[in-house]
Amino acid sequence: MEIYCSKNDLTNAVNIVSKAVPSRTTMTILECILITVSNGIIKLTSNNNELGIETVLKGDIKENGIIAIDAKFFSEVVRKLPDNIVNIKTGENNVINISCENTSFVKEGKDGNDFPYPDDVEKKDYITISQFTLKEVIRQTIFSTAQNDNNKIMTGELFDINDNRLRVISLDGHRISIRNIELRQSYPSLKVIVPGKTLNEISKILSGEIEKVVNIYFTKSNAVFEFDNTVVITRLIEGEYFDVDKMISTEYSTKINISKKELADCIDRATLLVRENDKKPIIININDIELELKIKSPIGSMNERISIEKEGADLMIGFNPKFMLEAIRVIDDDNITIYFMNSKAPCYIKDESNKYNYMILPINFNTVG
Amino acid sequence: MEIYCSKNDLTNAVNIVSKAVPSRTTMTILECILITVSNGIIKLTSNNNELGIETVLKGDIKENGIIAIDAKFFSEVVRKLPDNIVNIKTGENNVINISCENTSFVKEGKDGNDFPYPDDVEKKDYITISQFTLKEVIRQTIFSTAQNDNNKIMTGELFDINDNRLRVISLDGHRISIRNIELRQSYPSLKVIVPGKTLNEISKILSGEIEKVVNIYFTKSNAVFEFDNTVVITRLIEGEYFDVDKMISTEYSTKINISKKELADCIDRATLLVRENDKKPIIININDIELELKIKSPIGSMNERISIEKEGADLMIGFNPKFMLEAIRVIDDDNITIYFMNSKAPCYIKDESNKYNYMILPINFNTVG
Repeated sequence: MEIYCSKNDLTNAVNIVSKAVPSRTTMTILECILITVSNGIIKLTSNNNELGIETVLKGDIKENGIIAIDAKFFSEVVRKLPDNIVNIKTGENNVINISCENTSFVKEGKDGNDFPYPDDVEKKDYITISQFTLKEVIRQTIFSTAQNDNNKIMTGELFDINDNRLRVISLDGHRISIRNIELRQSYPSLKVIVPGKTLNEISKILSGEIEKVVNIYFTKSNAVFEFDNTVVITRLIEGEYFDVDKMISTEYSTKINISKKELADCIDRATLLVRENDKKPIIININDIELELKIKSPIGSMNERISIEKEGADLMIGFNPKFMLEAIRVIDDDNITIYFMNSKAPCYIKDESNKYNYMILPINFNTVG
Repeated sequence: MEIYCSKNDLTNAVNIVSKAVPSRTTMTILECILITVSNGIIKLTSNNNELGIETVLKGDIKENGIIAIDAKFFSEVVRKLPDNIVNIKTGENNVINISCENTSFVKEGKDGNDFPYPDDVEKKDYITISQFTLKEVIRQTIFSTAQNDNNKIMTGELFDINDNRLRVISLDGHRISIRNIELRQSYPSLKVIVPGKTLNEISKILSGEIEKVVNIYFTKSNAVFEFDNTVVITRLIEGEYFDVDKMISTEYSTKINISKKELADCIDRATLLVRENDKKPIIININDIELELKIKSPIGSMNERISIEKEGADLMIGFNPKFMLEAIRVIDDDNITIYFMNSKAPCYIKDESNKYNYMILPINFNTVG
């Protein structure tokens, strides 16, 4: 195998596939990046058995071949090479020579034929969505997936396609995030659970441009995200997702309109008085003209008032500041509307056009400090 | 006590004095920032018993007074306040009220009279130097101070004033860094050892502008750095510094001129093949036209050649790549000159105008890979 490519293209390609290299594995070949050169195409591949990434590298081919090279070494060497044309060449016994200008590295590789390719997926059912939208949707929902594996389904996000609508949902037992997206055309109905980790990695690779698209193919057990020169293949999470519609209410007794920035900054300041792992809620008081946040802790106390527009009853309610803050921060609107029922029922932050709906469970409070 | 000041000025002042707040201390009052308001001046003070910082805060005074407030809390609150005028007011029992726009924090402070002021230093002998130069000199020498306290003197830097010349020296047993600065006027001879930690903190606070100056006052046991609205008072390290002139030679048998960037990049690449804490040297081969760096390790191997201008004998010599790299990186010249005697004697990187001189001890090598 022998190829020539620019350091820049090589760096980008290695960065992309590095996202699926496992940090710990018993299969040492998976710590490698696979380079395959055939049919006029140079391809880099990585695979951690749940997620696989393939990307096409622009370059000149001198000789076809296949080789696996330690991902960490390869990525570090490539990053530190001079900014010029790089030559990668294999010799006997899987020895790899990487040279650029007056420098050359020699490294023992592994037989590329031993590398387990990601699952081969039949590309039939798919949807098309802009890179910008997918990246936004992931950012606006990923924070409320569960971080531990106690309930595997909660670590993923539901992709619920119905006609020309895609609904993306995440929940962790304390809150639910819903994003509705209108697709450019209609598709057959489909519900799949995509691992949160996969979505996290994809959002890092996506350039996020509006005019570029992602094709997402679905099978029973896999999803394939195809964009730019890259293909991401992921296992899906098996099982039935929660019936979120049954968990959500549209009734309310109090509705407020408030500046997103003012509320976020206020809660952010209040967190200074909360020690980590402290389960103490932040208590807000809503009257006709103001939302008042009061907090008193061993660290100190704080008091802040924010002007609001309000409909309905006055209310006092307690929240985990982190849950409130994470939802507010991903909303792009300057003003947000929050719907409350009472101090023991969840609140909803949602917009009129039904683009997003964030449900957050309150925390009970006994006395107010 | 009651004052008004801008959030911005307050943030800057708190950031400056925070540099001398100890992270661990048995004297809890030292975890505070002292605010003193008297004689029309608002002053913030911190002190960790080795280093003290005072800075004047611009603002309006409503009432004189003195209070100590937990530095971590104060700095976090100030950072998260709205970008507007801040009011700080003390009440009974050292209670402090910090308010800005519609938010207000209440925190119990400590009696400011219990705060141990930094040493009072008689300001007699001093030198004046531009902020830019002092910041540069620290950056170009601090890396070769010793990091552990086995030899206290090695953790500091020698400030050696002689006539209109300042010589700043650091050494750690493996290398010596020397920077010579021409002062704008002549001063009486003086030698003091300034703690490396102090210099590190000072270089973070210095704006580094060429037109701004620092006055440095010296006494037997203290140094005071006065610049902008800030005064830094530091204990000096007692004892006699090493006689560096006896350690340094100007003789050489090989002299090379090489691109700084090419050599730095080359050594940086070579470090990819060295595991941390590996004592293995990087071996360079010098002939009439090239410097060749070869390294072979269990990780892989590398080979690189860099064009040089050379006078004198060919040479093969081994170095700790970190020591070589740290010295080269702080030099601003595009091309550097390195002087060698033989494979067992130190090398010197120095310029013709005698601004800098970096001595590095070689590492013995037995066989070449």
